Amino acid sequence: MKIHIITIGDEILIGQIVDTNSAWMAGELNLIGARVGYIHSISDDGDAIRKTLDGALEDADAVLMTGGLGPTKDDLTKKALADYFGVELVYHEPTLVWIQALFERIGRPQKAEALHDQCLMPANAVILPNKMGTAPGMWFEHQGKVIVSMPGVPSEMKYLMGHEVLPKLKARFGGKPIQHRTILTVGEGETIIAGRVAAIEDRLPPHVKLAYLPAVGQVRLRLTGIADDVVALEQVLNEQAAAITACLSDIVYGFGDTTLEAAIGQMLLAKGLTISAAESCTGGHFSHSLTAIPGASAYFKGAVVAYDNAVKMSLLGVRAETLERYGAVSEQTVLEMARGVRELLQTDLAISISGIAGPDGGTPEKPVGTIWMAIASKDAVTAQKIVRGKDRLSNIQYATIQALNMVRKLLAE
Amino acid sequence: MKIHIITIGDEILIGQIVDTNSAWMAGELNLIGARVGYIHSISDDGDAIRKTLDGALEDADAVLMTGGLGPTKDDLTKKALADYFGVELVYHEPTLVWIQALFERIGRPQKAEALHDQCLMPANAVILPNKMGTAPGMWFEHQGKVIVSMPGVPSEMKYLMGHEVLPKLKARFGGKPIQHRTILTVGEGETIIAGRVAAIEDRLPPHVKLAYLPAVGQVRLRLTGIADDVVALEQVLNEQAAAITACLSDIVYGFGDTTLEAAIGQMLLAKGLTISAAESCTGGHFSHSLTAIPGASAYFKGAVVAYDNAVKMSLLGVRAETLERYGAVSEQTVLEMARGVRELLQTDLAISISGIAGPDGGTPEKPVGTIWMAIASKDAVTAQKIVRGKDRLSNIQYATIQALNMVRKLLAE
Repeated sequence: MKIHIITIGDEILIGQIVDTNSAWMAGELNLIGARVGYIHSISDDGDAIRKTLDGALEDADAVLMTGGLGPTKDDLTKKALADYFGVELVYHEPTLVWIQALFERIGRPQKAEALHDQCLMPANAVILPNKMGTAPGMWFEHQGKVIVSMPGVPSEMKYLMGHEVLPKLKARFGGKPIQHRTILTVGEGETIIAGRVAAIEDRLPPHVKLAYLPAVGQVRLRLTGIADDVVALEQVLNEQAAAITACLSDIVYGFGDTTLEAAIGQMLLAKGLTISAAESCTGGHFSHSLTAIPGASAYFKGAVVAYDNAVKMSLLGVRAETLERYGAVSEQTVLEMARGVRELLQTDLAISISGIAGPDGGTPEKPVGTIWMAIASKDAVTAQKIVRGKDRLSNIQYATIQALNMVRKLLAE
Repeated sequence: MKIHIITIGDEILIGQIVDTNSAWMAGELNLIGARVGYIHSISDDGDAIRKTLDGALEDADAVLMTGGLGPTKDDLTKKALADYFGVELVYHEPTLVWIQALFERIGRPQKAEALHDQCLMPANAVILPNKMGTAPGMWFEHQGKVIVSMPGVPSEMKYLMGHEVLPKLKARFGGKPIQHRTILTVGEGETIIAGRVAAIEDRLPPHVKLAYLPAVGQVRLRLTGIADDVVALEQVLNEQAAAITACLSDIVYGFGDTTLEAAIGQMLLAKGLTISAAESCTGGHFSHSLTAIPGASAYFKGAVVAYDNAVKMSLLGVRAETLERYGAVSEQTVLEMARGVRELLQTDLAISISGIAGPDGGTPEKPVGTIWMAIASKDAVTAQKIVRGKDRLSNIQYATIQALNMVRKLLAE
């Protein structure tokens, strides 16, 4: 199954936003055995839509479009699609009902007239319900090919892909069975990991491939196999995944679609332990990461974001002498912060983080990107230092991952 | 000047990396008055390169390519380009000298033979020196059009764009000036805003367009004008931007590239005020948003993430009676939380947020997505309720934006 992706929107072409939809879609399509041949980013413009669609349909089995749908006037996509297929725009009553219910729910009822244009759909569209927003997706069959149009808002596109488009594409195009095993690691870079598993990778059977998918502080290893015999394929993939996991046992935290935060949540739940945090340079990002997981309240009690040194002293009990002598970004300070917050919030474990996030504020001894962190338990407090670059957000994210990894390692002991 | 961008590399098409080069290039090209008509992401494949180049050159004055250059992938793109132009690959001595010097400097001298293929260039290429890496850029003139090929590594592409490509394009094409004005709003949806500015939009001169760029809780309005007379164009855009701003004065928080967090930071700085937060359902995300801005320590003192009710009571002074009678998600609780954290961290302002982030945990009276928040100042504490859907992360993000908007409104009074 060969796919073209078309992302519509002037905001991409003038560089105002980065197109992250395409990469996400391409990754998901890969998982169902589809291959993305081209990604086209085009203008909010009828001619561009028609011309690109024409070219794409020459080469692809299916064309997935995002963007160009939504309530305001700069949205021409539905008109362009209707023209392309030679059909009229027709009124879609269920869409009105859905949009009105949405507005009702937030206490801002809307009259049908104001929503009229949003309910017009090309007559040949199969409407794909969008529970995340007002504009539904549309599925078209045209000369043996499939065309799908989705809103460009990432959460809406992802909902439609997951609940409607991917299952429908799979059913429509089929193909040889494809299986994946994803091994999740934290704490080492791609090059080191590739070196450690080189011997296994070299001996993989030809129908199994290994890909490295790096993110901030983490690398996912994905085995992909394609074969007619599903049972044999599953066995081979399970064996290879087990070999890789054994080889990387110190850095593997999970499998499949989970996240490091969710894996740590499961470990804390299993051990019946609670956790708290004292954050300085990460400014709440560590706590946000943990609490992004549903059910986090079972193990996460709370945190103190101690941005100001006065807060480090008054709430966490960091001694003025420690701050004066060693500075806020020091082993001694994070040790006191971790002990302090564990005591204050009465938890089994506690994390502390203090660093120079940047882009400014460094010194020769403590350059921007210097970040100390500590973990306290009933028995001990240990600290570690990392040194990163000058990018503030990347430093905050990386420090969060490293702190989560400290929790994981302690729980795995 | 109309441009197509072609990014070459399988890693984009399998979703392994997000193409950030295109957006950066598009933004820079816009500033010199060039318009990016299309962005094509294609495979590391000779046929795809030739075919896409053919289509692009039909429409564009210049085609900028990134990727497909470098020690391992070198041959493919250069060979495809040489074929396309009907020329031979020829040896480029200065490139050898440059690469050898690079390896010399890191103490790994290389023999000329090992670098032979990297020094082969299409005979018609003007070589663009790349001080950031081994593979130079290439500039081609072909049938009155320009084709440029650059490495895909962002730092190398940016160097070549800044030092070679942009100045050369400007000299080569000139072109009609383009200007933008971006107006940033928070607190209303796209539909409502479009209704409010409909009269202004309908009267826009034909060379000025208005686009709506929505994000969670925010909408950016972008005016784009193209005209020969820059002074007249600037005046028209300034007038229209002023009209829109006046019409939306209650929801406009800034202009251009700033963010709501940065705008609030500037307002706090200007008034010499400090702020703190007490977060329950947002779990640190509000604090993270504020502290993602460099220099936030000048006004943000800290926060208490009071996930557990015990923390709400012990640190923030929320009364047990309040929690029992009204629940943690209630007007009374957020009022006490805001007062409590303001007192505890000794700040001028304080925000509190408590809600049911989801996906579970709702009741008929308090469905998932019910979120209370309050803002406390020296003089008063006020609360508001929002009701959203079941998506946890979207609820957290939306609540953060709404809380930031409460701060903005208070500061704007």
